Amino acid sequence: MIIILKKDAPKDEVERLWHDIEAQNIKINEVVGSHTTILGLIGDTHKVDTEAIEAREIVESVQRVQEPYKEVNRKFHPEDTVVSVGNAKIGDGNVAVIAGPCSIETEEQIIDTCMQVKAAGANLLRGGAFKPRTSPYSFQGLGDEGLKLFLKAKKATGLPIVTELMSLAHIDLFNDVDIIQVGARNMQNFEMLKELGKCSKPILLKRGLANTIEELLMSAEYIIAGGNTNIILCERGIRTFETQTRNTLDLSAIPVIKSLSHLPVVVDPSHATGKYELVEPLSMAAVAAGADGLIIEVHNNPQNALCDGAQSLTPKRFEKCMEKCAQIGNVLGKKVGTL
Amino acid sequence: MIIILKKDAPKDEVERLWHDIEAQNIKINEVVGSHTTILGLIGDTHKVDTEAIEAREIVESVQRVQEPYKEVNRKFHPEDTVVSVGNAKIGDGNVAVIAGPCSIETEEQIIDTCMQVKAAGANLLRGGAFKPRTSPYSFQGLGDEGLKLFLKAKKATGLPIVTELMSLAHIDLFNDVDIIQVGARNMQNFEMLKELGKCSKPILLKRGLANTIEELLMSAEYIIAGGNTNIILCERGIRTFETQTRNTLDLSAIPVIKSLSHLPVVVDPSHATGKYELVEPLSMAAVAAGADGLIIEVHNNPQNALCDGAQSLTPKRFEKCMEKCAQIGNVLGKKVGTL
Amino acid sequence: MIIILKKDAPKDEVERLWHDIEAQNIKINEVVGSHTTILGLIGDTHKVDTEAIEAREIVESVQRVQEPYKEVNRKFHPEDTVVSVGNAKIGDGNVAVIAGPCSIETEEQIIDTCMQVKAAGANLLRGGAFKPRTSPYSFQGLGDEGLKLFLKAKKATGLPIVTELMSLAHIDLFNDVDIIQVGARNMQNFEMLKELGKCSKPILLKRGLANTIEELLMSAEYIIAGGNTNIILCERGIRTFETQTRNTLDLSAIPVIKSLSHLPVVVDPSHATGKYELVEPLSMAAVAAGADGLIIEVHNNPQNALCDGAQSLTPKRFEKCMEKCAQIGNVLGKKVGTL
Amino acid sequence: MIIILKKDAPKDEVERLWHDIEAQNIKINEVVGSHTTILGLIGDTHKVDTEAIEAREIVESVQRVQEPYKEVNRKFHPEDTVVSVGNAKIGDGNVAVIAGPCSIETEEQIIDTCMQVKAAGANLLRGGAFKPRTSPYSFQGLGDEGLKLFLKAKKATGLPIVTELMSLAHIDLFNDVDIIQVGARNMQNFEMLKELGKCSKPILLKRGLANTIEELLMSAEYIIAGGNTNIILCERGIRTFETQTRNTLDLSAIPVIKSLSHLPVVVDPSHATGKYELVEPLSMAAVAAGADGLIIEVHNNPQNALCDGAQSLTPKRFEKCMEKCAQIGNVLGKKVGTL
Repeated sequence: MIIILKKDAPKDEVERLWHDIEAQNIKINEVVGSHTTILGLIGDTHKVDTEAIEAREIVESVQRVQEPYKEVNRKFHPEDTVVSVGNAKIGDGNVAVIAGPCSIETEEQIIDTCMQVKAAGANLLRGGAFKPRTSPYSFQGLGDEGLKLFLKAKKATGLPIVTELMSLAHIDLFNDVDIIQVGARNMQNFEMLKELGKCSKPILLKRGLANTIEELLMSAEYIIAGGNTNIILCERGIRTFETQTRNTLDLSAIPVIKSLSHLPVVVDPSHATGKYELVEPLSMAAVAAGADGLIIEVHNNPQNALCDGAQSLTPKRFEKCMEKCAQIGNVLGKKVGTL
Repeated sequence: MIIILKKDAPKDEVERLWHDIEAQNIKINEVVGSHTTILGLIGDTHKVDTEAIEAREIVESVQRVQEPYKEVNRKFHPEDTVVSVGNAKIGDGNVAVIAGPCSIETEEQIIDTCMQVKAAGANLLRGGAFKPRTSPYSFQGLGDEGLKLFLKAKKATGLPIVTELMSLAHIDLFNDVDIIQVGARNMQNFEMLKELGKCSKPILLKRGLANTIEELLMSAEYIIAGGNTNIILCERGIRTFETQTRNTLDLSAIPVIKSLSHLPVVVDPSHATGKYELVEPLSMAAVAAGADGLIIEVHNNPQNALCDGAQSLTPKRFEKCMEKCAQIGNVLGKKVGTL
Repeated sequence: MIIILKKDAPKDEVERLWHDIEAQNIKINEVVGSHTTILGLIGDTHKVDTEAIEAREIVESVQRVQEPYKEVNRKFHPEDTVVSVGNAKIGDGNVAVIAGPCSIETEEQIIDTCMQVKAAGANLLRGGAFKPRTSPYSFQGLGDEGLKLFLKAKKATGLPIVTELMSLAHIDLFNDVDIIQVGARNMQNFEMLKELGKCSKPILLKRGLANTIEELLMSAEYIIAGGNTNIILCERGIRTFETQTRNTLDLSAIPVIKSLSHLPVVVDPSHATGKYELVEPLSMAAVAAGADGLIIEVHNNPQNALCDGAQSLTPKRFEKCMEKCAQIGNVLGKKVGTL
Repeated sequence: MIIILKKDAPKDEVERLWHDIEAQNIKINEVVGSHTTILGLIGDTHKVDTEAIEAREIVESVQRVQEPYKEVNRKFHPEDTVVSVGNAKIGDGNVAVIAGPCSIETEEQIIDTCMQVKAAGANLLRGGAFKPRTSPYSFQGLGDEGLKLFLKAKKATGLPIVTELMSLAHIDLFNDVDIIQVGARNMQNFEMLKELGKCSKPILLKRGLANTIEELLMSAEYIIAGGNTNIILCERGIRTFETQTRNTLDLSAIPVIKSLSHLPVVVDPSHATGKYELVEPLSMAAVAAGADGLIIEVHNNPQNALCDGAQSLTPKRFEKCMEKCAQIGNVLGKKVGTL
């Protein structure tokens, strides 16, 4: 960490700052320039509160040199994290495929869709029981009832299931869920992150619409700091000025995150683009860019979906998408789902 | 609502769509152009699910003509909402001033700061007991203990208090809190919004970092749809590419929101800019642009603040800021706080 | 085009609007709702000035139904445009590869680099003689002298060359340049676009940092409206809040543009990311997403490059990148460069 | 400037870097931490090319400590720049008001509008002869003919005029123009900036839609480095995800720029918002936030304006806006225009 002091900072104030920092067991090395004096902090600074230092009148700015995260940092944990759930592994060098409908609607719909995505090569299932919707007038998900139907699909297919937790009040319903999803809108719901840090169930943490990669890693740090190391990160598009797609899928985030952290990264092209025609090319691109997994929305009847039909693939289109992705995976020496 | 059909859409599919829409008690008027056919929907369309319509293969796009919110819409409720709490009113044509520290740290700190902001003209108090922090290693607030100290400040000053709710699990602690703040990161925590819709306590709803004005109004619609009409909206900066300020304060949002909705709008220049030097000019600007209130961070010793010291005013600077704002308010015929 | 009228719009004003629109040879179909009246315009509306209509007091808003561009629109020109230059074709179903240094520095540097990228499979050359630099104190390119050196590299390799035009005042120097690049910062330099519309040389039009896909297509429409149909579009990253990469590469733009327009789309992963480590995975991803070409920065000695060394591949890394991209291309049945 | 080295950087490479930097007459101070080694550069580093250093394999990242601009930097030139033109001054502690139509359409229109804005208190005139339009099918301005009409308005009112230069090819037509405007889309048209640096005419430099404050200052540095110190900066809204306004007006930029630079800052609420109803409240806010001037679009018949009618004030509304702004100016001890 680097502290840039204001010109003409009073000596006694500088000494007080110096003293307060050294009290945190950190050494300081001073660099005196013609216009600026810089303090270089040496030691374990990731717990130092930069804002508190910036609040001092003598400080012009503070710049981090080390990353503010530690447990999720590849520098300190060079080995890839592999999350295992049932027969599926995420982060083992292959491409896991999580597929299923946006929301669980009926027993027929969820079981039929899940059987079909399994047949096409998916190795995990997705489906929403509690749905975050912008409008209070939109379908909010079947809730508890939906979870029960999803468990039937789990049983029918033998595949592990992923579903979103929208409130800690529902956590007891999630006992048989294999991976708990933290949605983009809850990425910085810190109370939820703290609680999930206490369990050992794998967490799928989605990047917030307006959150940087560093903030995503800091949210993962919340979970891991609580003791839960089973974390899967998910890139699902960020908000920009472009309106042709719902969000802008940031595929650069894949290699960037994989260089900064040991956690696996999966990509959700369905939510990122909001358009089913874009799911296949961007799934292929995600695999080519090194993703550890894909989350794809599939509905056995998109035109009558209660939620996000416009971005859902039919089982047939999903099958074709899987074949294409498997060919790309083949170039990289990776299996895609069970293909 | 306008539905634009794809060229050469099969007649029977169009008829099915037509039928499904009319089943929702909505009339349709068809406009046939040379390249495009448009269906104009007539009736109460704010509950129609645009995504479900877009999922149909025959539909090129759907455009809303009416706003998707109803209860917060000024068109249907032209009278300004005035939120009353203790002796303070928000939205009555004056400028309410909510001031206090970012976080509650000690009894001395909170009471001293609150007494001073009251003396300078604030008519409500702010202070954080549960703090949303990007890093798990930063100070997380005193929690329950902090709330107790804040209630002492409430008693000492006689002013109503505003504080943030980070989890529904804490709600029982908020009985004596006057206004519950929903933070920017929880603006789309829909489970929280639904619960808060069931109480009658005033809610201060902050705009999310990456949320549009329309989404802010939709989140307010969640609360009001539950029965709670005591809502105050808060503009606190949005995320952009600019890095000189923490966020970009969107003052245009004030007149825009006030034309779209009857709810009062307050502005938080402290969080928006992250720099105390910018608080005074932007507070003045917010008053000039028509804000119904200001939320300003004040700390009796910013240099030792445990949180957000860099953006906190000293009581002395706050006093000067209040005087300037009062002069601007005077031009518009508005009181600013108690001045 | 749809015009939404304000409630209680005076009849005579509406009639005047109606009359003015019909005078443009456009028919109107009225849809009268309970809260809103909508006018649906039928005919060739892409020349109608929406702003002029919005300026009327009786108009609440105007929404386009058809795209505002015509000549670049795939709807009216379904066949793919193929740009031919020397032996290279862009848009013919393969992946053209344009490679070379950010800026031309010395004869040795440009010829050596170009020979090496040719050997590795590139089929066009890039190199900057006039450089747009944020700082007036940075290297501004060799100018005229640089162009002459680049022409030597063209002769030595037999490959066509692409270089950026920064001012119309330089156009006479570009006679032997094969493709003129319009840089991101000049995407809306409309005077330049108009002039380039008058020549027949291929234009590589880069998307501006903050420009939508629609605006990119409108800028292409400027060129094509002048008579020049030889246009290649380039996605090179847009500006967002993320700071890990220089810009956010928007790979969704590839399939989106290809569905909206018949023009070929190439991708520049070097400028988008600003980091050489990211060039290979994102080049592969771009090919997988359907790009018609790649523009990649290669320098025979990146560590001493006068410009953008941090994002330049060494010839060796470029060779490896080409091999990987060729394998991805193979999956799609496409040649990548000459591989 | 701070250079952060990679762990285990080879000694000889570090020495070479060290040597190359010292060759630029810069001293180095080394800070050796447990995980990182930092080089602190001491001396005049604003000409050091950070990218070239980042290109070295041993370098993890480079962070500037000093601003990259010098001539526009308030640190080195603490006195406010005052631009004088005719009887008007910009930056002298008052609020200059530049008003007039978006585009010059007819002699009657431009003279009538200009006489009315003068009567209402404007002290400079604006009007576009060459218009940057997104669509090639929109009105492009009267060009040369428009300039001649604008000079008649200058003569009729005795007020100095501001108009946009879209191409250096037109510069000879600008002899009698008092202030040359560089539009947002040309903020990084560096060839234009270099040429304008060679003249002595005042330049109104608009911030680009996606440009940071630092980039705006770097563009001003281009002009000032050429010898022209008569520069006025203009905040006119940046591009964000919000769609209720055309752009997001960044009023924080006013105090930020004034602290970083000695150049005056004016605000254009008309282009920023795109809606005439927002011009008055945001003009007032801009004055309250410390703007040195306002640029406001006024048209004597907005409903028939050929360009930007939706954001133009009528002369009557402008008069009211001026009165309100003058009252705000009065609070700050500033004249607004001639009021």
